Amino acid sequence: MASLRAAARLRPAASRVTNSTLQPRFYGAAGAAAAVQSPPSFGEQPFFRGEPVGPIVRTAIPGPITKKAIEDLDKVFDTRSLNMMANYQKSFGNYIADPDGNLLLDVYAQIASIPVGYGNPSLHQAILTEQMASALINRPALGNFPSHDWADILRTGILKVAPKGLDQVFTAMAGSDANETAYKAAFMWRRQYERGGANVEFSEEDIASSMLNQAPGAPQLSILSFKTAFHGRLFGSLSTTRSKPIHKLDIPAFDWPQATFPLLKYPLEDYVEENAKIEAEALADVERIITTHHLPPCAVVVEPIQSEGGDNHASPAFFRGLRALTKKHNVLMIVDEVQTGVGATGKFWAHEHWNLETPPDMVTFSKKAQTAGYYFGNPELRPNKPYRQFNTWMGDPARAILFRAIIDEIERLDLVTNTANVGEYLYGGIEQLAKEHPGEIMNLRGKGQGTFIAFDSPRRDEFLKKAKSVGVNIGGSGERAVRLRPMLIFQRHHADILLEALEKIVRS
Amino acid sequence: MASLRAAARLRPAASRVTNSTLQPRFYGAAGAAAAVQSPPSFGEQPFFRGEPVGPIVRTAIPGPITKKAIEDLDKVFDTRSLNMMANYQKSFGNYIADPDGNLLLDVYAQIASIPVGYGNPSLHQAILTEQMASALINRPALGNFPSHDWADILRTGILKVAPKGLDQVFTAMAGSDANETAYKAAFMWRRQYERGGANVEFSEEDIASSMLNQAPGAPQLSILSFKTAFHGRLFGSLSTTRSKPIHKLDIPAFDWPQATFPLLKYPLEDYVEENAKIEAEALADVERIITTHHLPPCAVVVEPIQSEGGDNHASPAFFRGLRALTKKHNVLMIVDEVQTGVGATGKFWAHEHWNLETPPDMVTFSKKAQTAGYYFGNPELRPNKPYRQFNTWMGDPARAILFRAIIDEIERLDLVTNTANVGEYLYGGIEQLAKEHPGEIMNLRGKGQGTFIAFDSPRRDEFLKKAKSVGVNIGGSGERAVRLRPMLIFQRHHADILLEALEKIVRS
Repeated sequence: MASLRAAARLRPAASRVTNSTLQPRFYGAAGAAAAVQSPPSFGEQPFFRGEPVGPIVRTAIPGPITKKAIEDLDKVFDTRSLNMMANYQKSFGNYIADPDGNLLLDVYAQIASIPVGYGNPSLHQAILTEQMASALINRPALGNFPSHDWADILRTGILKVAPKGLDQVFTAMAGSDANETAYKAAFMWRRQYERGGANVEFSEEDIASSMLNQAPGAPQLSILSFKTAFHGRLFGSLSTTRSKPIHKLDIPAFDWPQATFPLLKYPLEDYVEENAKIEAEALADVERIITTHHLPPCAVVVEPIQSEGGDNHASPAFFRGLRALTKKHNVLMIVDEVQTGVGATGKFWAHEHWNLETPPDMVTFSKKAQTAGYYFGNPELRPNKPYRQFNTWMGDPARAILFRAIIDEIERLDLVTNTANVGEYLYGGIEQLAKEHPGEIMNLRGKGQGTFIAFDSPRRDEFLKKAKSVGVNIGGSGERAVRLRPMLIFQRHHADILLEALEKIVRS
Repeated sequence: MASLRAAARLRPAASRVTNSTLQPRFYGAAGAAAAVQSPPSFGEQPFFRGEPVGPIVRTAIPGPITKKAIEDLDKVFDTRSLNMMANYQKSFGNYIADPDGNLLLDVYAQIASIPVGYGNPSLHQAILTEQMASALINRPALGNFPSHDWADILRTGILKVAPKGLDQVFTAMAGSDANETAYKAAFMWRRQYERGGANVEFSEEDIASSMLNQAPGAPQLSILSFKTAFHGRLFGSLSTTRSKPIHKLDIPAFDWPQATFPLLKYPLEDYVEENAKIEAEALADVERIITTHHLPPCAVVVEPIQSEGGDNHASPAFFRGLRALTKKHNVLMIVDEVQTGVGATGKFWAHEHWNLETPPDMVTFSKKAQTAGYYFGNPELRPNKPYRQFNTWMGDPARAILFRAIIDEIERLDLVTNTANVGEYLYGGIEQLAKEHPGEIMNLRGKGQGTFIAFDSPRRDEFLKKAKSVGVNIGGSGERAVRLRPMLIFQRHHADILLEALEKIVRS
C-alpha cells in the first residue's frame, strides 16, 4: 500500500481511527470525549460538525441486540433481504449506526438514495416549517386540488434543476411509477401521432377495444430497453427490466424487446477500437429492433450507467449515437436517471456528460431526489385530453419540499463539485490498489463519473460481508460488481477511510 | 323540504350560516369575530375548536386571484384536470379554502383520501417529533436497512388495524403499487403451487424464459377483475381497471379477463328477487371465466364498493359467494379497500360488512391511510426467496407514522362509530330529498355503509359545479353518480349544511 499512499499523496495517519476505538469521536462536538486534534486529510473542513471521525465496530454485524430485533421484526415483515438493521436517530452524516452501537461509513446510502447525509441539519430545519406540516397533513390530490403554492414549490425545487431543454414535470412517487408514467406518455404521444395529431378524436373502435384490453385501443406497441437494464419492478417497468431472473420470475410480462447493451472491456485505454466496435454493434441492434420488431417501440429507455445490472458504462459517443437513431426513426428517448441523477456522477444529471445536440425527450428521477417523476419539454408530450395522465396523489408536495431543501444544501456546499473532485481522488486510490491486487479488483469503472465507481470482485459477496467487519457498508450490483454509492457529502477524509478498508479486505 | 325537516327532526335554523356572511365564524375560536352563540344541531359538540361554522362563497369559483394562479401553474404543470385550487394552510377540519377566500364544506376530501380533517391538530403534534423528522430525512431502503423501531411502528399502527385473520403486511406507496405488488404475490404463489411447493427450484427454462419476457418464466396467467372496476393506472393495475376509456386509451394492456359486476336496481327493497338473480349471474360469469379463460386467473380482485366506476354496490351474499367460488377453484381473493377502507363505510374495513367465513387472502389499502400496501395472513404468500418482492423504498416509514397518528385520532374520537351514525342520518335526509325530487336524485345507494353514499343525477356535471356555488365541494364517479366522500370527522351539523346545499341544487 506504500505505493498507493505515495501516488495519492494523502491520508495523514493522524486522522485514522482504528476499530479498537470504542468510544465514538466527533468533529467539532462539544463533549469531553469528542475532541479531535488533527484535521482530516488535506486539511479539508468536514461539512458537518458532529460527524463521527471514523467507524466503530463493536460486535459482529448483526450483533446480539440486533439479532433479537430482527427475529422480532420477521414476525410481521419479511426480513430475508435484510442487510443491516439501523438506528437512524443515531446515524449522522456519512455514518450509519446499528442497535448494537456499531457505526459504519456508509457508501451504499440506502441503495444510492440518501443525498446529503443522515440527520442533515439543514433538512431538519426545512421539515420544521408550517408549509411542510401542511403538506404532510393536507396531502392533496394534485391533479384536482393543487395548492396555491405548488407552482412556487416546483419552480424553486424540482424545476430549478430541470435538465437543460426540459421545463415541465410530471411528478410521481418512486422510480417505478416515474418510469411507467413516462412510458404512458410515450404511448399516448405515439398513438396521437399515428392518428394525425392532438385534435383527431379517438375512433369508436379505439374506445371500445381499450375497455377490452385489445388493440387498437390497447395498442400493439412496445418500449425498447437494454439487456441487463433495471427500470423498476411493477408490471410495465419490470417488462423493461432485464437485470436478474429473481427480479422477473413468475411475473407476467409484455412481449417487449431488448437490445444489446455494450459490455465494454477494461481498462478502456487498452480496448479503444474493440470497444468502439462493441458500441457500434449495440447501436445496430437498436436500429434493427426499432425497424423490425413486431411490436414497434415508441420509446427507448436507457440508464446513463446500468446500475442494478452490474454498473455497466458506455461512452458519450454511444449515447449520442442512440439519440441520433431515435431522432431518425421518430422514437422517443427516455433517460432513466433514477440512480444516476442528483449529482453522484459529478454532474447534476449524468446525461450532461454526453453533450447531446438535442435533449432527451424525457428524463426520469427518484432516489436522491426523495421525490420522483419525469421531466419533459415537448408540449406534445402532454396528452391531448385531461385525465389521461392522472392518479389520486400524482406525486407528493411534502417530498417536493424536501427535494427543494436538498437542492439548497447541494448548492450551499457545492456538493456536485465536491463529488466530482472526491470521485477523482477516490478513483485514483482504487486504481492504485487494483494495480497492486489485480486478481481482487478488476474492471474498475467510473473514471470521471464522480463517486459512481464500481469494480468486479471474484468473491464479491464475501467482499461485501467483510467490509462491514472493517467498518464500511458497501453494496453490490449485478453478479460480481462492488458498487460505491457514497452520498454527496462524501469527502477526501472519508475516501481515505474507505481506501484503507478496501485495502484490508483485498489483503485478507 | 318541510317534510324532510320533520322526518329528520333536526337542523335548528340558528346554526345556519348563509353565503352572505362574508366573515368566517369559528367554533370556539378566541378571535373577536369568531364567537358562536348557538351550538350545532342536536347540541353535539364539534370535534375541533376553531372549525368554521359554515361555508363562505365570496366569488365565482375560481375567483380572480385563483384564475391568475392557475394560469401561472399551467406553465409548469398540467392543470386541465384542476377542480379547485386550494390554500391548505387556511383549510381546517371539513372546510377547504381557496386563494380567493372561499371556504367550502369538503365532502370529496382529496378523492376520499383525507381522513381526520385539514390541519388536524393531533396529526400536527405527531409530525413535530424526532421520530418523524428522522423518518423523513433518513428514508430507509426498508427491505435492506429497516430501522430498529420499524416493527414497533407497524404493530402500533398499520398492523393494529389489520383486517381479522391477516397479520402480515407488505408496505407500498399508493393504491396502484399496493395492488400490483399484491398481484405479484398472487402470481408467485400460483407458480409455486404449480411447481409443487416452496422448496422446488425454478427450472432452467423458467429462468431463461423469464429474462426474455416469455412463458413459462413470465407465465400465461391473469388477474380477474370486474367490469366498471378501478384498481389503479400503472400497467398491471390498469389491465384490471375497467372504469372509463379515458383511463385506458392508448396504453398497452395484458389480455386479462373481466367478469360482470352485478348492477343492482334501486330501491333495493323493490327488486329483491331480480337483484338476487343479477348477482347469481355475475357469480356464474366469474366461475365460467375462472374455469375457461385462456390465461387462468390466479386471483380475483374486487372493490367492496366500486368507486371510480360509479359507486356500484353488491350484497354481502354476493361477496360470500365470491369467497366460496375462489376457495372452490383455489384462486386468491384480493379485496381492494383503497377507497373503502379506514372507516368510511361505518366499519374500519368495508369487507367487515360481509361476515365472510374465511378472510380474504389479501386486502390492499391506501388513500385515508396515507400510506399503502397489502395485508395477508397465509405464510405461503411470502415468496419462497428473498428479493422476489422487493424495491428500493418498499413503503415509507414517515407515512406509516402518520397512519399511526390517524388511527390514534380515529380511536380517540370514535370516528368509525361517528361515521356509521352520521351516515345513517345523512342517508335518511337524502332519501327524503329523493322522494321529493325523484327526477333529480336517483338510485340512492349506500344505506348502512356509513357516509359512503352516492346517487345518480341526470345532469351530474352541472350538479357538481352548482354545488360549489352553494358552498360544498362534491365529487362524481362513473358517468352520472354524485359521490359523497366526507372525512371521518363529518358530523350531523355538517350533514345539515350538506342537505341544505343539496336541496338548493335540486330545486334550482
